[in-house]
Amino acid sequence: MPGSQPDFQKLIEFIRDEVNRDLTNLPIPDKPAYFYDPIRYSLRATGKRFRPILVHLAGRALKADPDSLMKMALAVELLHNFTLIHDDIMDNDAIRHGQPTIHSKWDASKAILAGDGIFTMAQLLLSSIPDRANEVFGFFNQACLEVCEGQALDKEFENDLSIADEQYLDMIEKKTGALLGACAALPAILTNAGKETAENFDQFGRALGKGFQIHDDLLEIYADPEDMGKSLGSDVAEGKQTMMVILARNEFGQEWEKITSDPDPETLMKRIRDFFSKTNIKDKTRSMAEWYFDKARDSLHKIETIDREELLKFVHLVEKRTY
Amino acid sequence: MPGSQPDFQKLIEFIRDEVNRDLTNLPIPDKPAYFYDPIRYSLRATGKRFRPILVHLAGRALKADPDSLMKMALAVELLHNFTLIHDDIMDNDAIRHGQPTIHSKWDASKAILAGDGIFTMAQLLLSSIPDRANEVFGFFNQACLEVCEGQALDKEFENDLSIADEQYLDMIEKKTGALLGACAALPAILTNAGKETAENFDQFGRALGKGFQIHDDLLEIYADPEDMGKSLGSDVAEGKQTMMVILARNEFGQEWEKITSDPDPETLMKRIRDFFSKTNIKDKTRSMAEWYFDKARDSLHKIETIDREELLKFVHLVEKRTY
Repeated sequence: MPGSQPDFQKLIEFIRDEVNRDLTNLPIPDKPAYFYDPIRYSLRATGKRFRPILVHLAGRALKADPDSLMKMALAVELLHNFTLIHDDIMDNDAIRHGQPTIHSKWDASKAILAGDGIFTMAQLLLSSIPDRANEVFGFFNQACLEVCEGQALDKEFENDLSIADEQYLDMIEKKTGALLGACAALPAILTNAGKETAENFDQFGRALGKGFQIHDDLLEIYADPEDMGKSLGSDVAEGKQTMMVILARNEFGQEWEKITSDPDPETLMKRIRDFFSKTNIKDKTRSMAEWYFDKARDSLHKIETIDREELLKFVHLVEKRTY
Repeated sequence: MPGSQPDFQKLIEFIRDEVNRDLTNLPIPDKPAYFYDPIRYSLRATGKRFRPILVHLAGRALKADPDSLMKMALAVELLHNFTLIHDDIMDNDAIRHGQPTIHSKWDASKAILAGDGIFTMAQLLLSSIPDRANEVFGFFNQACLEVCEGQALDKEFENDLSIADEQYLDMIEKKTGALLGACAALPAILTNAGKETAENFDQFGRALGKGFQIHDDLLEIYADPEDMGKSLGSDVAEGKQTMMVILARNEFGQEWEKITSDPDPETLMKRIRDFFSKTNIKDKTRSMAEWYFDKARDSLHKIETIDREELLKFVHLVEKRTY
């Protein structure tokens, strides 16, 4: 792998640029402005585009048709954007990727409708893929249902002090893992690569998604706020579960309560960071993320018929990200 | 047609019962309750089921496979329910079919997510239809996009005193006509009946939908409130456009302003009813609905290869409904 990393970075940037170009080139009418202005705004927002990139990389490993792959890649990105728009309403989040969310820039009604429209556009993109439509639609929408279940669990868990790590892992598998699983598995379905291969791709994506989310929990506390594009610690402040909070509560109940009961926002983040370091919760969480990244690699190694080099590099990229 | 109407009523009731049975038999998991309790509640609510009935009748005229028809019928009913759930949030409507809406019984977050889930379930039902998946998905989701556009126009038109009848007709064609068009056209697409036939079915459904909506505007003012399952006149009170309000404003501006400027709710409905009768706005609106029902019948007569008897009886049923 050494030496080839710069080329891989270029490939990732190329795919991201292509995805961004095609997203902004999607034909969006001018009217009704109530519907299409927020949609256009959403499609022009930046994003890491990890999901469409994963579709392309999985598809390249399977030598899938690039046109169909791009449609699939755009569809999963639109599905992801649709869920973010609706989640941001439910979670009252005003900022996403450094920009005002639709419901805060306009209002909740426009954000509901924009999400609905973007989800519908995702389905329309899929309907233009010529091959294996039923299987593709079924898998895509099954993943979407699971993402909704994950969001429901996330809401149920808010401010619930009894949530254990297994419940949290189940929640993030649904909320994040299911869609990354679909990103990896859909190209296998498209190319009729067989049930076992699709299943291994799905497992690969799910493990990658769980590693990604646990890593994200760490970044929420330790990353540079400017890189993240939102104020850090907002999840902790809103009573959202993260792996670190669950470990702190379950292993150091009284101490954790003491630290979080002082709401001074100036010092809260520093107190939390120091506590997670001192108690090894930071290291433990980091190891847990690593365990899932290794699990993702294991799933890839079970698929014997593909060139898995780019996908392994992608795992490396995800696990090393700092924002 | 005389003499056969009781049999047709029985057929409609039979289809409605089958649709209701299959809706309540859709496998809905218990957990997460946050997600599935509102969905279960929504699927057990009553409704006229005009849309799935239309799918079945169009399909019977084309001798389509009954299993696929039922999946299609359930999918359009779910799509309809999903749009109602989200529209009710946007319009702040607390009652639908005599029952509390999801956002008023629970909250807006649960209603957003329930709508998303029901829409996804509609797609999953379609993905289990074996034939012509791409065309079916494309038509279904194109109709959905148009329904969203119609809702956006409806919101844009609220409290806009400059809206003309053509704009209103364009809005209801999208908001109501597009989905009834899809109900009629999807079975033609399923059976590969040809582009022209599908187009005529679509036009039939769109005209029926416009007649249905204009008739609905009349019922909102003149029907028995208990039959309608909601307080009458709420659209007028909320600044929603209806065909009668547009005619009143454009033809009798000052008088109409005077009548609606006195907000006494006790007498408002009676004053509005008397005004619409006196000015012939009631008759004019009734004629306009009739014109669209005739247009629907004309579209049916263009389709030469089908037995159109049941569909003509369905038009009759829709135009004579009193609630």
